[in-house]
Amino acid sequence: MSELLSVTRAMELVLDYAGSFGTETVDLTMAAGRILQQTIRAERAQPPYDRVMMDGIAFRHGSGSTLVSHGIQRAGAPGQPLPEGHVCLEVMTGAVLPEGADTVVPVERLVREGRLIRFEDGYEPRKGQFIHRRSSDCAAGTELLAPGCRLDGPALAVLAGNGHVHVTVSRIPSIGIVATGDELVDVSAPVRDWEIRRSNEYALTGALLSRGFNCIERSVVPDDLAETIVALREQLSRHDVLILSGGVSMGAFDHVPKALSKIGVERVFHKVAQRPGKPLWFGVGPEGQRVFGLPGNPVSATTCGVRYVMPMLLAGQGLCRPEPYTVMLDADADLIPTLTRFLPVKVRHDATGQALATPCPMPTSGDFSFLASTDGFVELPRGDGVAPRGTAAMFHGW
Amino acid sequence: MSELLSVTRAMELVLDYAGSFGTETVDLTMAAGRILQQTIRAERAQPPYDRVMMDGIAFRHGSGSTLVSHGIQRAGAPGQPLPEGHVCLEVMTGAVLPEGADTVVPVERLVREGRLIRFEDGYEPRKGQFIHRRSSDCAAGTELLAPGCRLDGPALAVLAGNGHVHVTVSRIPSIGIVATGDELVDVSAPVRDWEIRRSNEYALTGALLSRGFNCIERSVVPDDLAETIVALREQLSRHDVLILSGGVSMGAFDHVPKALSKIGVERVFHKVAQRPGKPLWFGVGPEGQRVFGLPGNPVSATTCGVRYVMPMLLAGQGLCRPEPYTVMLDADADLIPTLTRFLPVKVRHDATGQALATPCPMPTSGDFSFLASTDGFVELPRGDGVAPRGTAAMFHGW
Repeated sequence: MSELLSVTRAMELVLDYAGSFGTETVDLTMAAGRILQQTIRAERAQPPYDRVMMDGIAFRHGSGSTLVSHGIQRAGAPGQPLPEGHVCLEVMTGAVLPEGADTVVPVERLVREGRLIRFEDGYEPRKGQFIHRRSSDCAAGTELLAPGCRLDGPALAVLAGNGHVHVTVSRIPSIGIVATGDELVDVSAPVRDWEIRRSNEYALTGALLSRGFNCIERSVVPDDLAETIVALREQLSRHDVLILSGGVSMGAFDHVPKALSKIGVERVFHKVAQRPGKPLWFGVGPEGQRVFGLPGNPVSATTCGVRYVMPMLLAGQGLCRPEPYTVMLDADADLIPTLTRFLPVKVRHDATGQALATPCPMPTSGDFSFLASTDGFVELPRGDGVAPRGTAAMFHGW
Repeated sequence: MSELLSVTRAMELVLDYAGSFGTETVDLTMAAGRILQQTIRAERAQPPYDRVMMDGIAFRHGSGSTLVSHGIQRAGAPGQPLPEGHVCLEVMTGAVLPEGADTVVPVERLVREGRLIRFEDGYEPRKGQFIHRRSSDCAAGTELLAPGCRLDGPALAVLAGNGHVHVTVSRIPSIGIVATGDELVDVSAPVRDWEIRRSNEYALTGALLSRGFNCIERSVVPDDLAETIVALREQLSRHDVLILSGGVSMGAFDHVPKALSKIGVERVFHKVAQRPGKPLWFGVGPEGQRVFGLPGNPVSATTCGVRYVMPMLLAGQGLCRPEPYTVMLDADADLIPTLTRFLPVKVRHDATGQALATPCPMPTSGDFSFLASTDGFVELPRGDGVAPRGTAAMFHGW
């Protein structure tokens, strides 16, 4: 048996072809969860004025502890001048600090007697307190968001606060999922003893949608070379990425590699030193389409989808921050001498913040009933014996 | 100063009113990310037949190591009988084990000579190998998914594999986000020195959408009691949940509590012993609408949204698995003697799988430019001095 491609090398090859899916400009209201592709700078100093931080009064420090209210400085109004003398302006949180004032006292520390306002007994304001100084958060032009970040709540708020009605983000690639296999029947159809329902495409769709890839077409081809060629050619013309499930192992009816070659998809690799997922196929179409041939077994297809397809898609969108993180095994796990092992696990954080993965080895070749009770899988290098409890391993979530 | 409500007690009160937003039935293709609200049981035994696990041949163990091929047993076809004698059937992964066969040999171990197929030299198959036995994964009727789980890829595949074209999930509540404050101008409008753009609603929208709450209406009311009453009454009639930002601290123009009382929203609490977010207001409308009055400060509004509103929404959807997890501080953090502190942090997992939170204390009252560089916040109990590096704390992600 010739040396199989390692997982690391296979991933490098996939990422070599990740390229970029380009960018598009969307409305801010549609940008949640998208990957930013422009640099966002502060439109102006932040805050743009000396900003009052508490509801209360603004006054000139040292002008006394009983003051005459000269009126109200609301938020959203230009700053008023504070006259000379033992006077103050009543101020709201977010208001401009009145011109001539230098200190704010919060309402909780004040006692009001008609137009007279005095400090609580013994209260000593510190000069300059409760003022959020102009430009203290950042100067105009400061970089606030960099390309490659996912737009979460605070990032969306930065866009809004700096006047970005439209935003340039990574384009979402068009993805075709193609199921192969005569034993597959539709979810809604009656199922005979020797048939199973198409379900890999739902696992893949779930993984794609949870990562923001919502441009998906699903189709199915029977175990027939001619029909497979027609169907794959059609799919290839419509999508940036094809994800095929089934038809890549060594059976006489596994037409997928043959059909792909016929339509000009060049094989980059076939088979990787891993379990599950050894028959994984990857190639590139005439217009640069990325084509994955995943094994038909549910656990293999889902694992390869998460381990190879998702990172490629995220790289093609320019996401800066990698998804997987390290966890610690909380039980021994058998290694495989010649293959990287992808082992389904449940993950939790203990009371100290240690991420712990409980291995859930499959009783048999495994199906989704089993997978649905897990959170993802850890990656164990080829080796002899066991990876003992306490071993650190990379975790990939479904 | 009277004793303020603790964070724990405030959360209990909010959850007391979480109730349920009800259920609805959706198409399987629209169910990704939704919360399941039915029990899913195995439609039939899994696998439903003795399933061939490898491409190769099936034969009767002990009938010899050179066999005559009697034909092909494809996946997706009923099981053929294997005749008596030194014969085999060529089998595909996923096929029914032919009747009378008891062992599978993978194609990699076989040498073919016309219709004769023999084992690789020295190969000794184990009786029963590479057969995934009927019902070995689970018996018909086994519980596969329980109410309250979020439908990820594997769970969707379980639904598909068991014939569920439609699925009962938690209803997504209708949510109204109402911004208050005369200093707020629209994202697209020119902004004068003393004005700031509406952005809290975008941070809240981002947090909601990333948790699957996509039924959101945004509106804005000026700092005027009468207009606030009209607008809030209208919003209350349309939504299950109202999230107001601004107008709940002690300023003369903070009309929100007054307006809410006027339209029959009963206050459950106002103010919590926490920083930021002390002025948090929570109440319940005449038809059970949950109403949150968040402070107007960006960090306060976002923090309270994540700490109180999101858990209430998820509880109202019946999500079983709690969102926050424990992390370990990787630097000292000052405590606040009388208040729970919500401290923005960046989170990472180190090479052993330990989740570490780096505190990012705000230079001032803080705005989104700062928040966008963090992942969420940790919760530090009231106390004197510092929480030293190594302290475990609950993490809440944006």
